[in-house]
Amino acid sequence: MDLTQYIRDVEDFPKPGITFKDITPLLSNHKAMDHAIGQLSERFGNQGITKIAGIESRGFIFAPPLALALGCGFVPVRKPGKLPWRCRSVEYDLEYGSDKIEIHEDAVSADDKVLIIDDLLATGGTMAAAISLVQDLGAEVYATACIINLNFLGGGEKIDTEHHGLINYD
Amino acid sequence: MDLTQYIRDVEDFPKPGITFKDITPLLSNHKAMDHAIGQLSERFGNQGITKIAGIESRGFIFAPPLALALGCGFVPVRKPGKLPWRCRSVEYDLEYGSDKIEIHEDAVSADDKVLIIDDLLATGGTMAAAISLVQDLGAEVYATACIINLNFLGGGEKIDTEHHGLINYD
Repeated sequence: MDLTQYIRDVEDFPKPGITFKDITPLLSNHKAMDHAIGQLSERFGNQGITKIAGIESRGFIFAPPLALALGCGFVPVRKPGKLPWRCRSVEYDLEYGSDKIEIHEDAVSADDKVLIIDDLLATGGTMAAAISLVQDLGAEVYATACIINLNFLGGGEKIDTEHHGLINYD
Repeated sequence: MDLTQYIRDVEDFPKPGITFKDITPLLSNHKAMDHAIGQLSERFGNQGITKIAGIESRGFIFAPPLALALGCGFVPVRKPGKLPWRCRSVEYDLEYGSDKIEIHEDAVSADDKVLIIDDLLATGGTMAAAISLVQDLGAEVYATACIINLNFLGGGEKIDTEHHGLINYD
């Protein structure tokens, strides 16, 4: 199954000159979603992964079904002020300014082997920040994965674990 | 399995005097998540549902695994400015001020029978707005469901379809 058929190019979003990769046609097609989660399960099954971390918001769409398929727990990585309990947070640089993400202190521990999921890898800043949050809690980051890899932006270079993309744009 | 054991009360979040129902212990426990999705599948399987709509952000966690279990598509209902393609939007009242949610125009159509999912039902404003978005595109809202129902806030009264809560606080 060619998953690129379920990705819609939207011109000039979120700003002029940018072509946005819209995943909603994939999400609304049961067979395409089943295939995407199946591919990730095949790649990451039977490797001792104990937790799947998903990055807000679109990482939340793929991490829980994969966690169910692999028999793991799901832990959310969120924007500031959203997680109610005790948090670790990390700030990271954007093209202009900075951003911040958080994780609950009890989300993972030294016993955990973690796969981090987001829908898309662009410049890699958010994923690198998520890796540092998980490592800061003593857990091992086994790998990172995304549905769409914008390889031409070089985000993979910021990530010091294996990174797996289901759909790759070179 | 008693799912209330996986809900953590966090006092004074998001503001003093409020007790927040934290679902992260449920999310991080594979058996509890499996049970929650299994209960929803049992309740809503074999009823001709074609699409599961999930409300940003925590609705995104439960709607996709349920959609995969029921063989349906998943469609996101999002905060303003997040969906890249052509949208319908609806504004709704909050205790102070108002808020807005959006759906893609091609998310559902007259042929669809839709189940709308969020993690929690409080005063019901967001869920009622999501119902009107789906109906505005000509689809049938078959039912709504959530993981946590705060019945004492009376949100169910704002919802004119069946509403199903997995965990109910009276």
